[in-house]
Amino acid sequence: MLAGLAALYRGRGCDVLVTREPGGTALGNRLRAAFVDPETAIDPIAEAFVVNASRAQHVGEVIEPALRAGRLVLCDRFAAATLAYQGYGRGVDLEILLALERISTRGRTAGLTLLVDVDVATSRARVEARSRANGLAADRLEREGDGFHERVRAGYRALAAANPRFVTLDGTLAPEELVRAAALALDAKLPA
Amino acid sequence: MLAGLAALYRGRGCDVLVTREPGGTALGNRLRAAFVDPETAIDPIAEAFVVNASRAQHVGEVIEPALRAGRLVLCDRFAAATLAYQGYGRGVDLEILLALERISTRGRTAGLTLLVDVDVATSRARVEARSRANGLAADRLEREGDGFHERVRAGYRALAAANPRFVTLDGTLAPEELVRAAALALDAKLPA
Repeated sequence: MLAGLAALYRGRGCDVLVTREPGGTALGNRLRAAFVDPETAIDPIAEAFVVNASRAQHVGEVIEPALRAGRLVLCDRFAAATLAYQGYGRGVDLEILLALERISTRGRTAGLTLLVDVDVATSRARVEARSRANGLAADRLEREGDGFHERVRAGYRALAAANPRFVTLDGTLAPEELVRAAALALDAKLPA
Repeated sequence: MLAGLAALYRGRGCDVLVTREPGGTALGNRLRAAFVDPETAIDPIAEAFVVNASRAQHVGEVIEPALRAGRLVLCDRFAAATLAYQGYGRGVDLEILLALERISTRGRTAGLTLLVDVDVATSRARVEARSRANGLAADRLEREGDGFHERVRAGYRALAAANPRFVTLDGTLAPEELVRAAALALDAKLPA
């Protein structure tokens, strides 16, 4: 969806950067590999530090320079993902996660957060189809049970309900319709 | 030095665990590899998150279970190393580092911190001799210039001066004398 959104805005003359977390930098990719490996035991607080380490590097090395250059930055997962996965999913205290977030982002927040919402069964079927297509084994988060993924989804929906920065999109829309809905939300946020 | 100290206390019937940071766990070793690689760019705030990720895992998986089992834990570097390296060395705000430390340690502090103090030239000669003996290239921190290592040393000495938990040992003592001096400091802290 972000690729389609980027193509649309590039067609309008915007300088767009598409990036992702965890990852997005050399350090972040190394951390991501350690983090998603299902063979490596990881404590929920340690997990929160690892994703924020990746975020601190990503903000400093990639996002802030792009914003300073006037680029539009589209990031696949950002701070809200940590509240949803490590907070609602793993049960880490949200105040602890917000304290880590303020440090790793240097106080930078997303101008708009698009929540592409689908039910857990649909999400799981899509992840499995993608894993088969790529020949990749499921990673540590993907292997979590439905209870975990239901908590993550409920967390995202609670965050969206509490925060006017969120726009929730129906993830069962056809790809081109989803891009159109995302563009409507983004148009409303961008300076003309 | 910790190996000699552990041998001494084991000889007295203590159940001793010797461990280290960064590292000490499977996750920590993976993070350490990402962290010390001189080819991977790393922002100072990201570095602080990585070392605290390793610490969070180490405290949860290794240190707390050992303490609960009544063992004596000797750890090669702990939270003070982050204040010295990332704080005094890299210039990250000490208040930020203390906030991260409170979260990664769950408020656990060392009962005694032994600072083995040597001048930077001596330390560098020892690191180089060890690298030659092991056939290992210098890591990212070891490659830092003398200015960085002078700031780290001054930081450790400032922490030791401000905190009665620290005991400073003369790192130019012969190994057996250093172990004897460390044991005197540890004896004074341990319950009879």
